[in-house]
Amino acid sequence: MSRPHKQPHWTLQEIAAITRGQIHGDSATPITGVASIAEAAPGDLVFAESARYLTEALRSPAAAILTAPEVPVAVEEIHKPLILVDNPRLAFLQVLEALAPPPRYPASIHPTAVLGDHCQIGAGSHIGPHVTIGARATLGDRVVVLSGAHIGDECVIGDDTIIHPNVVLYPGVTVGKRCLLHAGCVIGADGFGFIPVGETLRKVPQQGTVIIDDDVEIGASTCIDRAKTGATRIGPGTKIDNLVHVGHNVHIGASCIIIAQVGIAGSVEIGNGVILAGQAGIKDHVKIGDGARIAAQGGVFGDVPPGATYSGYPARPHAQKLREHAATAQLPEYLRRIRALEQKVEELLRRQS
Amino acid sequence: MSRPHKQPHWTLQEIAAITRGQIHGDSATPITGVASIAEAAPGDLVFAESARYLTEALRSPAAAILTAPEVPVAVEEIHKPLILVDNPRLAFLQVLEALAPPPRYPASIHPTAVLGDHCQIGAGSHIGPHVTIGARATLGDRVVVLSGAHIGDECVIGDDTIIHPNVVLYPGVTVGKRCLLHAGCVIGADGFGFIPVGETLRKVPQQGTVIIDDDVEIGASTCIDRAKTGATRIGPGTKIDNLVHVGHNVHIGASCIIIAQVGIAGSVEIGNGVILAGQAGIKDHVKIGDGARIAAQGGVFGDVPPGATYSGYPARPHAQKLREHAATAQLPEYLRRIRALEQKVEELLRRQS
Amino acid sequence: MSRPHKQPHWTLQEIAAITRGQIHGDSATPITGVASIAEAAPGDLVFAESARYLTEALRSPAAAILTAPEVPVAVEEIHKPLILVDNPRLAFLQVLEALAPPPRYPASIHPTAVLGDHCQIGAGSHIGPHVTIGARATLGDRVVVLSGAHIGDECVIGDDTIIHPNVVLYPGVTVGKRCLLHAGCVIGADGFGFIPVGETLRKVPQQGTVIIDDDVEIGASTCIDRAKTGATRIGPGTKIDNLVHVGHNVHIGASCIIIAQVGIAGSVEIGNGVILAGQAGIKDHVKIGDGARIAAQGGVFGDVPPGATYSGYPARPHAQKLREHAATAQLPEYLRRIRALEQKVEELLRRQS
Repeated sequence: MSRPHKQPHWTLQEIAAITRGQIHGDSATPITGVASIAEAAPGDLVFAESARYLTEALRSPAAAILTAPEVPVAVEEIHKPLILVDNPRLAFLQVLEALAPPPRYPASIHPTAVLGDHCQIGAGSHIGPHVTIGARATLGDRVVVLSGAHIGDECVIGDDTIIHPNVVLYPGVTVGKRCLLHAGCVIGADGFGFIPVGETLRKVPQQGTVIIDDDVEIGASTCIDRAKTGATRIGPGTKIDNLVHVGHNVHIGASCIIIAQVGIAGSVEIGNGVILAGQAGIKDHVKIGDGARIAAQGGVFGDVPPGATYSGYPARPHAQKLREHAATAQLPEYLRRIRALEQKVEELLRRQS
Repeated sequence: MSRPHKQPHWTLQEIAAITRGQIHGDSATPITGVASIAEAAPGDLVFAESARYLTEALRSPAAAILTAPEVPVAVEEIHKPLILVDNPRLAFLQVLEALAPPPRYPASIHPTAVLGDHCQIGAGSHIGPHVTIGARATLGDRVVVLSGAHIGDECVIGDDTIIHPNVVLYPGVTVGKRCLLHAGCVIGADGFGFIPVGETLRKVPQQGTVIIDDDVEIGASTCIDRAKTGATRIGPGTKIDNLVHVGHNVHIGASCIIIAQVGIAGSVEIGNGVILAGQAGIKDHVKIGDGARIAAQGGVFGDVPPGATYSGYPARPHAQKLREHAATAQLPEYLRRIRALEQKVEELLRRQS
Repeated sequence: MSRPHKQPHWTLQEIAAITRGQIHGDSATPITGVASIAEAAPGDLVFAESARYLTEALRSPAAAILTAPEVPVAVEEIHKPLILVDNPRLAFLQVLEALAPPPRYPASIHPTAVLGDHCQIGAGSHIGPHVTIGARATLGDRVVVLSGAHIGDECVIGDDTIIHPNVVLYPGVTVGKRCLLHAGCVIGADGFGFIPVGETLRKVPQQGTVIIDDDVEIGASTCIDRAKTGATRIGPGTKIDNLVHVGHNVHIGASCIIIAQVGIAGSVEIGNGVILAGQAGIKDHVKIGDGARIAAQGGVFGDVPPGATYSGYPARPHAQKLREHAATAQLPEYLRRIRALEQKVEELLRRQS
């Protein structure tokens, strides 16, 4: 267990060269990663677009800060190295891309892969060992399918998508371009629908599919069920963490963030830019508006308006829930106060009668 | 991403032919699926056994309704096509089966499958690529095992069961007839038991097994642990959704519905016809009676009587929990009212003294 | 489904021989397993180090009890067979090990396994069918990798570790000695980190790794993400159940117990000997002290001191939460009492004016 892990690192000089920025401070400062200010660890580069964020960045463990020339003017003491650029967010993006070059997989099909009849595999694709590609499946260019993954019959996968080991796509599923599917996720298993007939439960046929748009990331062991009819849909740019359940006929919009172990029941409609924090659960047929946020472990039983933040069980507006939690924490004491009041009032009533 | 998904559809005429029913309305009405009234989407066929359900079905987005000749008499305005049959529920079942014929897999064993010594594979079975079948495993007739699945030594699998890609059955597990195991589920991993010895945790041997009865469906990435001794048991006709955890020595009865992400701790006893909604959790050794229901995210720490509906954390009868939630929502206001009362009572006491 | 499951069993005589103990009672008593007193089932052997535990053991369904010669003196009626030994806990451990001998896998590499360039596999290792071992991966002696598992490039696996079917280790992950990784777990997928840039979410590179120490057990379908930089770490002897999520940069100490479906967000620090019960969730960057316990479904949003027991949402000290739950259950009645008080006080005030 003593083998040290090799950690990539760069100098501030190298980072400044990527962004064509001007260094203030020690150009030999080592940089080992990039992060948002809230998530920064020692060695990280962060960016700050305003004096307020620069102040926060200076307080964080970050090693250096990308900012614009006018920002530091309003901040008193600058004790970390800076890189000055016209557009810090754009420069940060350039650094992100330079520091994390897409992994390279050689164009090749492993001899142990099993390819179905009439499947098509685009130029530059990499198919790993023990992969199964179904009949009439269509893979775009530079698609990567790693060992043990199963691509069902008639699936369609867009250019530059990467599918990690042991992922399963059931037949007929569509995945967009530049998607990233982590190990063990399952896309297109049957939705969960049964009708009681006497003492038994009869399966409702699940004849729809799953359509995943471009630039979607799906976490390890996450399960997205096929629709009863039509399609379960994941919008472009949405990012889904590990062990999430997405039921049949759910529609999720663009650029949503769905954190680990969230459960989304059937036919839920989720807008764009929605954030569902870890272990939240959404009841079937609920609608969640654009930009809404659900706190961790929230249990959502009714529609959530756009932009709202809900929390708790049953989920309600977060500010209200905070008041309820604070009140509940005082409740045992207040029950004593109520009993004391009752005694006093009885005493008052007794004296009067 | 613009490729349209092929959706199966039928005409009302074709459906009526299956049920030998009589059409009222447009016999060319397209039908794309079947559903319960509560879950109906446009294009669906639903069934209604009484005037009350027919009224609900007429309000739903369903395209057409299976009902009995005497039912519409009591309903005012019938604006959807009907199929009249003597027994709507039985006819609905016939439609279910006709519309979702069991998928067909050719009788074949893929040359990349690895078969253990003395394993038996019944007539008409389909063994996919990269499957491993353990030594002395016994598969019935027409069993389907899809790519990458692992069937451990001495497992027993009944006739007509379908095992999706990358499922893992540990050695010695028994699965009944006509079961459906979705991709990535894991049956028979060790139960979770340890005994502290000094600073360390020593593993308690898990020498039992898992026995899954006939007609059980198990969702993707669901995990059912083997018993410490004896067997973890899933009763006939029970349906389990995705990402569910079933601990060691749990016994689940017949025709239960266990929704996604439910967690059932060790040695729980669940009766027949029980419904556990999404993300509910059941403490170890708890008993849940026949026909009981646990609401989504419920945390069950004690026994639940037959037929009861429990919700919340800690779970209690649902009606009581609803009153508690309503009361808690008013609590911040009531705390203010208590403080106001205290002032008034102090004032009254001051005046009297 | 009627095939009986073979259950191993021993006689009390055989158990006594393992422990070199003295039998009181029927030496032919059959023993089918071992357990803690709380978890004991019929046929189990348990151990009792004091009169209090012996009394509990006598009330349990256990078949026989390991205890020390001086313990039964203080207990009135002994109606179960005993084995008397000097150190019951140590003897119990000997029985555990004798009853559950490590499974044996022959030293062999299956011809369908795919081995990467320059990978090293130690003496006595067993590599199953359809396994992929990455380039430059290093496996110790007697390592077992079962069918369909994927070991990424440059992974390091210690002696005597067992990896069950369809496990995925991403490149560069380190696993210690004597670990047990259950089927379908995923170690080293990308941490979940994105930065909004305009309408889109840009991926924060996840360049770190996962380091799992010796004697760790990891449940089926559990996901442990790689760090952004540095390493996500699981301490020695920690046991993790099924379907658990461990986010990037989490550090878990030694001998912790993490029960099924727990979710641990990024950068959480967990001490030694911590117990997280089922479905608990821990917010990112929280610190949990040595020996702390979090109850099932607890939602932890702030640091937890060493040795504390927290429960509920938001999690607080368990004793306080129990008072809150008891108070909340009475709340609907108390709201009525408040309204009654208000009427009486109004009446009193009216009389006075």
